[in-house]
Amino acid sequence: MSKALRVALAGLGTVGAGVIKLIDTNREIVERRAGRAIEIVAVSARDRTRDRGVDLARFNWVDDAAELAAREDIDVVVELIGGADGPALTLARRTIAAGRHFVTANKAMIAHHGLGLAGDAEGKGVAFKYEAAVAGGIPVIKGLREGAAANAIGRVYGILNGTCNYILTTMEAEGRDFAEVLGEAQRLGYAEADPSFDIDGVDAAHKLSILASLSFGSKIDFGAAAISGIRHVIAADIAQAQALGYRVRLVGLAEAQPEGSTTAGLFQRVAPCLVPANHPLAHVAGSLNAVVAEGNFVGRLFFEGRGAGEGPTASAVVADLIDIARGEYGPAFAMPVESLAEMAPAPAGERRGRAYLRFSVADRPGVLAEIAAAMRDAGVSIESLIQRGTTPDGGVLVAMVTHEGPERAVSDALARLEGSQSLIGAPMLMHILDV
Amino acid sequence: MSKALRVALAGLGTVGAGVIKLIDTNREIVERRAGRAIEIVAVSARDRTRDRGVDLARFNWVDDAAELAAREDIDVVVELIGGADGPALTLARRTIAAGRHFVTANKAMIAHHGLGLAGDAEGKGVAFKYEAAVAGGIPVIKGLREGAAANAIGRVYGILNGTCNYILTTMEAEGRDFAEVLGEAQRLGYAEADPSFDIDGVDAAHKLSILASLSFGSKIDFGAAAISGIRHVIAADIAQAQALGYRVRLVGLAEAQPEGSTTAGLFQRVAPCLVPANHPLAHVAGSLNAVVAEGNFVGRLFFEGRGAGEGPTASAVVADLIDIARGEYGPAFAMPVESLAEMAPAPAGERRGRAYLRFSVADRPGVLAEIAAAMRDAGVSIESLIQRGTTPDGGVLVAMVTHEGPERAVSDALARLEGSQSLIGAPMLMHILDV
Repeated sequence: MSKALRVALAGLGTVGAGVIKLIDTNREIVERRAGRAIEIVAVSARDRTRDRGVDLARFNWVDDAAELAAREDIDVVVELIGGADGPALTLARRTIAAGRHFVTANKAMIAHHGLGLAGDAEGKGVAFKYEAAVAGGIPVIKGLREGAAANAIGRVYGILNGTCNYILTTMEAEGRDFAEVLGEAQRLGYAEADPSFDIDGVDAAHKLSILASLSFGSKIDFGAAAISGIRHVIAADIAQAQALGYRVRLVGLAEAQPEGSTTAGLFQRVAPCLVPANHPLAHVAGSLNAVVAEGNFVGRLFFEGRGAGEGPTASAVVADLIDIARGEYGPAFAMPVESLAEMAPAPAGERRGRAYLRFSVADRPGVLAEIAAAMRDAGVSIESLIQRGTTPDGGVLVAMVTHEGPERAVSDALARLEGSQSLIGAPMLMHILDV
Repeated sequence: MSKALRVALAGLGTVGAGVIKLIDTNREIVERRAGRAIEIVAVSARDRTRDRGVDLARFNWVDDAAELAAREDIDVVVELIGGADGPALTLARRTIAAGRHFVTANKAMIAHHGLGLAGDAEGKGVAFKYEAAVAGGIPVIKGLREGAAANAIGRVYGILNGTCNYILTTMEAEGRDFAEVLGEAQRLGYAEADPSFDIDGVDAAHKLSILASLSFGSKIDFGAAAISGIRHVIAADIAQAQALGYRVRLVGLAEAQPEGSTTAGLFQRVAPCLVPANHPLAHVAGSLNAVVAEGNFVGRLFFEGRGAGEGPTASAVVADLIDIARGEYGPAFAMPVESLAEMAPAPAGERRGRAYLRFSVADRPGVLAEIAAAMRDAGVSIESLIQRGTTPDGGVLVAMVTHEGPERAVSDALARLEGSQSLIGAPMLMHILDV
């Protein structure tokens, strides 16, 4: 048996404590699988006194996480501090520069600085691994980087934020509105006190940009992702969707459109979508995550599991450590950074699809005619329309599903209605996942 | 860029042709991901003249596959001949003995000889890889060997045979009986002319024994798996199951029961089961495969995709080649063979669960009383019972679901009824998947 892999943990929140518990609990099976022991040597966190349910006295305590990078008694630094910049990024750069392996769960940092860090790691010949950054315990980074590596992947999509899925599926099951369910989720600890990264889709977009890079062999381009969240989904949207045979899910979707087509380029969008009830994503309930990848030889692959929390995230972090212990690691994004393609963002307007539109309107004659005229003038053809009930803002609910057409036509129709006195509040647009 | 990985293909059936097509079609992306070119150098098959839809003239043709093992111009041999013994095993042994990497899709050979081959490969420091052997294109070998490697896995189970799932879900959708759907599947090429390996559960059991070894860190023990197939499932079973909120699926299930319990040991069974309608396996339709693994930190992981066919299987074979090209490979069963535990088979009778029982009975007084008495005397408690309609053999159908209890009690009840003049044909027993 080779000598132990010596690990430092920076950040001792839920996940950090989980990593310690996992290595304590599964020491024997992890050592057999890794071919050597995995030993935590040093730890660092802001508050030394907080009770984390694990014995920290046996580890070296370091006040400044950045010091971990330079320690001769450490092979790998695991960064669980969080944040795209600041101490996490400093630690990442110093660790790699010092020729040590680096493991992180930090999707924001990867979305913003992953290419640079991966390039540095290649230069130093060390591992830069991040299985825990996307979809928690589901080995989807490995699934794309290695499992589906033989395929040209045309589309990757999924449910990448457990908080949003918990809120949407609770709204669905209980017929309640967004604000109420969010408040409850916050009280239960399922949602952050400041939930905007989750519910506005930014967290899912960080993850999506990473999946897109791995899937398409392209550079991460987080800035090009179109992002909208679930704040404006109301109970009536979910009810209408169900009546039409759909479920509402926050879907992150990326497509690589071939050159030469009008939609050529990299398409990335996070938005609430209508998912057909018989699609695998429609069955993903509660805080679960799921990812679908479509390869030109393998067809559709579907991965589902727990996307966050102590146990699943620790499972992913330690899987990375086992790979490092085995010496089974290579370029972070499946190929050297210099081999990753530059893909221009695809023009979203040319993309074709169907859409769900919901308006809250004033209860007086001519309103429906005004909406219908805007649709006609924009070239949007209506597949079905329902006017029933009222919305929380006191308007009458009008919901419709369009026929397939270019997305810009729907945007055009909504632009024509902007400022209309007939509408109460902004309309809701959700694309339909017809894949 | 390093020099190309030089590959020989032994066996040019559907999968072999698929591997050639994949490497031709995806050459550029595969080379970027692998870090070097993957070149097929030599091929071998029984019939040189058959049109396989690919140009073979550019490869060296070798009549005797075993010769591939010794060629100096080859780095990896891919075995797609099939069969647990014979030419496939000879080729495997010679290739590894000659210090060359070996990739196979041959579950039967692994189930019977995998430990020996893996030990030989360790001795020689070469790769022995088999992602295509289980669940086709789904990267489940990698998912267990690496993705979930940090976990103690207590249970692994899934739908491991696409032919059976196609037959069962077609019976379900169309209300037809087994023989009729099997005949149609054979005409359509979805089932073999001799379908027994598939429909009697042997193929699924080969795969299950491999998943169990990876999951539990134990030696493969195919001989200890209890195996029954789907021949005796009738349309009425599926209809009754649906009425009770279940779907019928052929499930391969393995559990590692902790020492000290009455059920201690390795439990492996392939059998048609009743799966609750809201369980992920209930949504697996047609010829898809799916695998669930339950880890003590990650929770439940679910993988689904295409389990067979040219494209998915080629995808898995080339994923193995990419790992080899990258140098990212290690022990075949996640740890050295000598580290794998010997687990004694678990005593199935002590396992607790609920069961579905269906009898075809004579239409005369006293029959139900006889069955009920046998249940009572064996200590089996009945949760629900239905007597309705007739079976294909002309009897009256009696179906029941038992309360939870030891499996031996149900076996005991059936033994008490053996030879009874009231029963027409053998009773059908299916366990309920309550996990």
